Amino acid sequence: MASSNYPTSGTVAAQPAPIDLDWAKTALVIIDMQRDFMEPGGFGETLGNDVSQLAGAVEPIAAVLAAARDSGMLVVHTREGHLPDLSDAPPAKVERGAPSLRIGDPGPMGRILIRGEAGHDIIPALYPLDNEVVIDKPGKGAFYATELDDVLQRYCIENLLVCGVTTEVCVNTTVREANDRGYRCVVLADGCASYFPEFHEMGLKMIKAQGGIFGWVSDSAAVLEAMTPETSKNTLAAGASR
Amino acid sequence: MASSNYPTSGTVAAQPAPIDLDWAKTALVIIDMQRDFMEPGGFGETLGNDVSQLAGAVEPIAAVLAAARDSGMLVVHTREGHLPDLSDAPPAKVERGAPSLRIGDPGPMGRILIRGEAGHDIIPALYPLDNEVVIDKPGKGAFYATELDDVLQRYCIENLLVCGVTTEVCVNTTVREANDRGYRCVVLADGCASYFPEFHEMGLKMIKAQGGIFGWVSDSAAVLEAMTPETSKNTLAAGASR
Repeated sequence: MASSNYPTSGTVAAQPAPIDLDWAKTALVIIDMQRDFMEPGGFGETLGNDVSQLAGAVEPIAAVLAAARDSGMLVVHTREGHLPDLSDAPPAKVERGAPSLRIGDPGPMGRILIRGEAGHDIIPALYPLDNEVVIDKPGKGAFYATELDDVLQRYCIENLLVCGVTTEVCVNTTVREANDRGYRCVVLADGCASYFPEFHEMGLKMIKAQGGIFGWVSDSAAVLEAMTPETSKNTLAAGASR
Repeated sequence: MASSNYPTSGTVAAQPAPIDLDWAKTALVIIDMQRDFMEPGGFGETLGNDVSQLAGAVEPIAAVLAAARDSGMLVVHTREGHLPDLSDAPPAKVERGAPSLRIGDPGPMGRILIRGEAGHDIIPALYPLDNEVVIDKPGKGAFYATELDDVLQRYCIENLLVCGVTTEVCVNTTVREANDRGYRCVVLADGCASYFPEFHEMGLKMIKAQGGIFGWVSDSAAVLEAMTPETSKNTLAAGASR
């Protein structure tokens, strides 16, 4: 599957330390880049959130996604949402707080957080290809009540490149679940975002603290550099020496 | 089981809002108050952590634990640790960082993070009674690869009072898992602690943000007030009026 000129492994600059990755054992996991969270006029905005805080994550994710597709890396997209009858939505989640719109209510892009509705789907810029894995998850964590762990084991995956929204909620929860299950997680700082900048910063800091207690923090440029085909590096080096 | 003079339900002052709890459907969950994390001379200290940062959580937990025992509330203790052969410890966890002591190595109070060793056990001040549930967990989250969810369902538990160490690691991870599973979590701010005060503060803030996206944050005094037997309240009121 992988293009032959891509390296089979690479060292990614990261904190708390660089990490060596075998790309055949690595998956790109893109968390919840859904229209209702990302787009003006969506559910996220109706709750009073400033969705422009999330927009910056799209381009870094798109760049890594393009390289992952070109190199043949396993790509996994996740979407938070529930069955139309809400039978997989805990009452404690549906009843939480006093929002103007609850899960299942008619929203600006279909029923809120319901699978199959327009707002529940992934934004066009990062839309999954037909051969990519899409995990529908009822919780914040992508491992709870989903097939994600089975899929990753089937592909013999050991490392996850994790990005998406939001940093402190679904990204952080999924990284914690993955870490407990033995996956080495590298979180792309510029490929994650939060409605709250301080939560973005601290969410990343918690992951890499204490020697990387939950994983590593890197960014899209460092991952792309480590994934660069040798031919491209040679061309770049030749260009630089002229 | 419950002492008859305890109320059957109560309203706990909390953020982002007060929460009504049916005590028969509520469990006290005490996370990882283990000697190796808490005591001077233990594993935590050998890693360079200031264990005195955690000491303040003991008394608030002890006060709530005493009330829980007196009222007949379900009490669950958790311990992070692994089987002696490390077969439940992911290589990615054992190899992480470059510590002077790794999981399974001989430490100051027995083999590090191994079940049955002295350092792995719970501190004397909060030691479990014979009839209390002790969950041995291989991960940061208390639900991953444990019987916790089964136990809570067997007891028809819907709400968790969560405390222990550390706020941003095992407490936060467990609360995120519990929230996805539909439990309403009330975290006791003064019954949790971290080696890093900023992580303690932000870990709590992330839980109660966005209308309580992962749960509620309260403290031991508010819980004790809501649990107080009516007779004691009457006595206190009478005392106050004199």
